[in-house]
Amino acid sequence: MSCAAVVTTTNAGTEPFDAWAAARAARVEEAAQQMLPVPGAVPERLHQAMRYAVLDGGKRVRPLLVYAAGEVTGAEDEALDRAALAVEYVHAYSLVHDDMPCMDNDVLRRGKPTVHVAFDEATAMLAGDALQAEAFKILAEGHLPAPQTASLMRELAHASGTGGMCGGQALDLFAVGNRNLSLAELERMHRMKTGALLKASVLMGALSGQAPLLTESTREALGRYGEAVGLAFQVVDDILDVESSSVELGKTAGKDAAQGKPTYVSLLGVEAARAWSLRLRAQALEALNGLGGRAARLREMADFMVCRTH
Amino acid sequence: MSCAAVVTTTNAGTEPFDAWAAARAARVEEAAQQMLPVPGAVPERLHQAMRYAVLDGGKRVRPLLVYAAGEVTGAEDEALDRAALAVEYVHAYSLVHDDMPCMDNDVLRRGKPTVHVAFDEATAMLAGDALQAEAFKILAEGHLPAPQTASLMRELAHASGTGGMCGGQALDLFAVGNRNLSLAELERMHRMKTGALLKASVLMGALSGQAPLLTESTREALGRYGEAVGLAFQVVDDILDVESSSVELGKTAGKDAAQGKPTYVSLLGVEAARAWSLRLRAQALEALNGLGGRAARLREMADFMVCRTH
Repeated sequence: MSCAAVVTTTNAGTEPFDAWAAARAARVEEAAQQMLPVPGAVPERLHQAMRYAVLDGGKRVRPLLVYAAGEVTGAEDEALDRAALAVEYVHAYSLVHDDMPCMDNDVLRRGKPTVHVAFDEATAMLAGDALQAEAFKILAEGHLPAPQTASLMRELAHASGTGGMCGGQALDLFAVGNRNLSLAELERMHRMKTGALLKASVLMGALSGQAPLLTESTREALGRYGEAVGLAFQVVDDILDVESSSVELGKTAGKDAAQGKPTYVSLLGVEAARAWSLRLRAQALEALNGLGGRAARLREMADFMVCRTH
Repeated sequence: MSCAAVVTTTNAGTEPFDAWAAARAARVEEAAQQMLPVPGAVPERLHQAMRYAVLDGGKRVRPLLVYAAGEVTGAEDEALDRAALAVEYVHAYSLVHDDMPCMDNDVLRRGKPTVHVAFDEATAMLAGDALQAEAFKILAEGHLPAPQTASLMRELAHASGTGGMCGGQALDLFAVGNRNLSLAELERMHRMKTGALLKASVLMGALSGQAPLLTESTREALGRYGEAVGLAFQVVDDILDVESSSVELGKTAGKDAAQGKPTYVSLLGVEAARAWSLRLRAQALEALNGLGGRAARLREMADFMVCRTH
């Protein structure tokens, strides 16, 4: 099924997806405003850089996954806010470090100068380091029962470390210029680099709710959904990198090709990459089959992540 | 009391401090060998850099504090190993990032080339990032009851973030060349930069044991002890930076003065700084007064941290 033919599967009586997503993104922004270190307190420059990295930016895909998955287990908004900020802090820190001269050396992100350009490299590195610690702190200071808090932190740590995001970043780094990377190697890299945190966002949303509703089979289904949308998101990213302008993306377009990075497009071509993103979307929706109306927002999120244009 | 007059206060029947510390340091090394990502697995270069940063290095002061504090609450060795590695990973990651060209630009650490010299800057940044995540993961995967696991992770997150180590690093960065820094500002910087993680090491050792033994008053006493030894450790560091050679220190000596960094020595002079380190040691010992023989190793640790020559 093409994206043009997607019929949004909202249940009768619920808010349309666009309005829901906009309201949730605004809620994340407000929560971040409140919970990030205040700009006027010492060390001011560090706090300013952390706020600059998180506030007023991005599509908030990871927080939206948290909120959507929270509906599966009837999670409270206050608990979801913390999980949403935690994954967004980790995502933001990874972008700050990834943009630095020793990594991608990028000067534009979300339409603004990157953190090391707007501040300096040392402050950017520390702001990233501090955001990772604050991600765990914000979970630790929540009001969920200790077993759930410990599970949330475990999920985030797994997704962030060497078996997840950092490991994937390392594979990405070592893959630059390697035109012989296989599709399997590319997939492993992306499953770790972006997929792990997207999957964790889904699981952490569900873990923030009523524990008895998160049965083993529900957790397994959400894991499969998270893996499929996580990979689909990256395939679409690769397509948009060649098809969109920097203005549309809010970041430097065409940089994968310029850097000699292997992508789904370089390995498969645009059409096959698009077809694969749609197969992954179908896999994601299939994983949710047993969850009924509680998973309505997650179904919409799959469409949102695959059919986006920026 | 001068360091020369220190009488080691070991209880009859226990192992002498030097033997205990050597055995515990060897235990940390062995645990790190086992629990760090294996060198032969993908991404190999990242794993190698993480192992290089942690293994075969340093005095293991933070792990020793964890083990010593664990004696206060009868903690099991297996639980203490995890807390010890978690604080050591955070310490190691902070050194890797601090040594990078955009921060201190140092090429020598623990007598070896720093990580970005032995590997490269991008790998060093990622290895630091991954070590922070692994620190939380190693706690999350322990076998303590969830309330204790959550408390350990909360303590580590607090000590690492903007109110602790990263915030102190930022203050340190902005203090370079500021000859007008007051003693109070210097103290705040060090309480955050190194003191917070040293204090957390003490609390995390105690938190790894039998929860009923960690009463509110014991916890408060350990916090005061941790703050005093944490600050004393830094004062001694400043003294050693001017009085020792690079070979003795295993890192570049005299670099504080060369970089125009305010230190206890530059603000107080060597003699007053030494006197102050001894007053802080006395405060640390006084805090332990009510804890009896359970705190014997912590008393020895105070001597070890203040009376060291490297």
